[in-house]
Amino acid sequence: MQKPLAAIISAGLSKFGRLDGMSLREIFAVAAKEAFDSCPNLNYKEDIKAIFIGHMIESSEHQCHTGPLIGDWVGLPNTPSLRFESACASSGAALRSGVMAIMSGLFDIVMVGGVERLTHLKTSEATEYLSLSADYALEQWNGFTFPALFASMAKAHMHKYRTKEEHFAMVAVKNHSCGAKNPKAHLQKEITLDKVMSSKVIASPLKLYDCSLISDGASCLILTKPELARKFTDSPVYIIGTGQASDTIGIYERDDLTKLNASILAAKQAYKMADISPKEVNLAEVHDCFTVAEILAYEALGFCKPGEGGNMIENQETCLDGCIPVNMSGGLKSKGHPVGATGAAQAYEIFLQLTAQADKRQVSDARIGLSHNIGGTGSTAIVHIYKR
Amino acid sequence: MQKPLAAIISAGLSKFGRLDGMSLREIFAVAAKEAFDSCPNLNYKEDIKAIFIGHMIESSEHQCHTGPLIGDWVGLPNTPSLRFESACASSGAALRSGVMAIMSGLFDIVMVGGVERLTHLKTSEATEYLSLSADYALEQWNGFTFPALFASMAKAHMHKYRTKEEHFAMVAVKNHSCGAKNPKAHLQKEITLDKVMSSKVIASPLKLYDCSLISDGASCLILTKPELARKFTDSPVYIIGTGQASDTIGIYERDDLTKLNASILAAKQAYKMADISPKEVNLAEVHDCFTVAEILAYEALGFCKPGEGGNMIENQETCLDGCIPVNMSGGLKSKGHPVGATGAAQAYEIFLQLTAQADKRQVSDARIGLSHNIGGTGSTAIVHIYKR
Repeated sequence: MQKPLAAIISAGLSKFGRLDGMSLREIFAVAAKEAFDSCPNLNYKEDIKAIFIGHMIESSEHQCHTGPLIGDWVGLPNTPSLRFESACASSGAALRSGVMAIMSGLFDIVMVGGVERLTHLKTSEATEYLSLSADYALEQWNGFTFPALFASMAKAHMHKYRTKEEHFAMVAVKNHSCGAKNPKAHLQKEITLDKVMSSKVIASPLKLYDCSLISDGASCLILTKPELARKFTDSPVYIIGTGQASDTIGIYERDDLTKLNASILAAKQAYKMADISPKEVNLAEVHDCFTVAEILAYEALGFCKPGEGGNMIENQETCLDGCIPVNMSGGLKSKGHPVGATGAAQAYEIFLQLTAQADKRQVSDARIGLSHNIGGTGSTAIVHIYKR
Repeated sequence: MQKPLAAIISAGLSKFGRLDGMSLREIFAVAAKEAFDSCPNLNYKEDIKAIFIGHMIESSEHQCHTGPLIGDWVGLPNTPSLRFESACASSGAALRSGVMAIMSGLFDIVMVGGVERLTHLKTSEATEYLSLSADYALEQWNGFTFPALFASMAKAHMHKYRTKEEHFAMVAVKNHSCGAKNPKAHLQKEITLDKVMSSKVIASPLKLYDCSLISDGASCLILTKPELARKFTDSPVYIIGTGQASDTIGIYERDDLTKLNASILAAKQAYKMADISPKEVNLAEVHDCFTVAEILAYEALGFCKPGEGGNMIENQETCLDGCIPVNMSGGLKSKGHPVGATGAAQAYEIFLQLTAQADKRQVSDARIGLSHNIGGTGSTAIVHIYKR
């Protein structure tokens, strides 16, 4: 197995959901405070040398320059701080850049995270802002919203592989069942297959319960060099692989809508770097912005062969006691999807799981985890592999 | 002197100015094409392994996810591509991240750049969008626009150091004189001191000709490992120092408005890394978003002592035949300021100068160059040092 690239020594997450009355800077500070408080050996004001923040939608905040804004409000006003925007992969990008920063030798300790507020918007406004991550000029302008883009992929998968609408619904049922065990999840309630199948159609075949949530929230991770990790904690989590790739910005340019090309490429890079095969992964957090996306992710990440994603969920292989539990946090579907915070929030869940802090949703003997964060219709994909 | 961190092997710049009828993706492609065409040994589709793009204002484009959008349109649809937003330091941030990416060992060759369109906006809209880089909630909301924020610094400097309005005006005269020699500059015309002094007051003491331009444009650089540079060109430019720091997001939190604190810190880091003193710098591109900012930059970068910036321009020390020529490109003042493109455009000018391609504005025997890029009211500062 690969020499670790970086180590996570602490992590924090705000409650996800409707955080009325809190500003962006205040929400991030909640996540940062948990990360600082959980690591007594960290003197954060002295030790943290750079900040990498994912944040997607400046339009809804009427605020750019989120890097120094956030640094200032967590008590690090002079620390170099950068904002990343890669649509819903913004904090996956921040995490990867934090890893690169550690690998570059420029810094010993950096803070990585993400933050977003969405619930103050009307649903129509949020839909419009989220659609900025596709090709606005050639897709959104013509009325192709995000549910419709993913519905096209769902239709293609159903056509090519005989995947059923019930398969998508099963993903929702599983993720809500996990989210019900996560005290920080946005929607902590179990749902039934009937409930999903009978919910309002948003963009056929996707229904209301096939769509992830519009949430507020923030995530934060503290990274250091592998060799320094045990100065700060007895249970560091090591990052042993990182991969990123792109796909065309518009789905109209793609040959095959049943594949997440960038995710396939990013996963290959990460597995190669970690020197492991998909079979060695004990649990994963994948980007279930719509239920179909989770099924496409199973296939892109090599958890099953192309076309077998539907069977995988039907056979409960990705449930808590399955061979590879997926989205034990509840995923974007039930934990929630404050878009800029999502990538680092996936890493937060992996950190909890690999350090045996995941309580009722704990995967037993979890040693190797994987996170998969995409932006837009998969035009950005970022994969990380972790080991305890 | 420090071992180089990375090498620039090629560079491209679009014309800066009003680029009517061109989309963001098309403008960037112009800069990228120059960089690709100028380096025949580069097989860009094979060689470039990652893309780092600075772009500030998604609101004005109604488009997020600029990373893969740009990658797609320059013929690199699967290459990992990230957007950085650090206000007007967005492509300085992209450059620094490109350097870190090379240093990390993950990539041999990366593309760095920036792009912005502003001239399609009404002046009031552009002013509003640019103001998003200060503290919106506590500054802009109360009517504190960017000219007013920098006017406060100008007033403080005049009060503490007896700097005169004419000193600010001299910066404009110098930079227009340089821009007149730059065929890619937005405004290629010389101006007189009288013209500046009698121009319309925008925010006293700053007048119209103290303000940089609202421009469209793009910049692009190709970076590689120092040891690979000569495979691609006989005249690489090496990056030998990089520094970044932050300051409070609001100027209301600062003790002294006459100092650019983050710039002082970033410059110290870069000089230390490059193992040189300010006296060894042969030319610099500094962030003259307003004329006063150039004077503050002289002092922050150690070209003169605090308070002596006014004398420095009065004594013509920063002119083409002065001891340290500054903003030979024309600077943001005359070359123009397509905000997301500015940081990498500064590096483009240094690249031209250190490879003796700057024609009528060439600094003789230029060996060491420096670029200084700030975001907002200096809440982000990024400094790079280059040698031929």
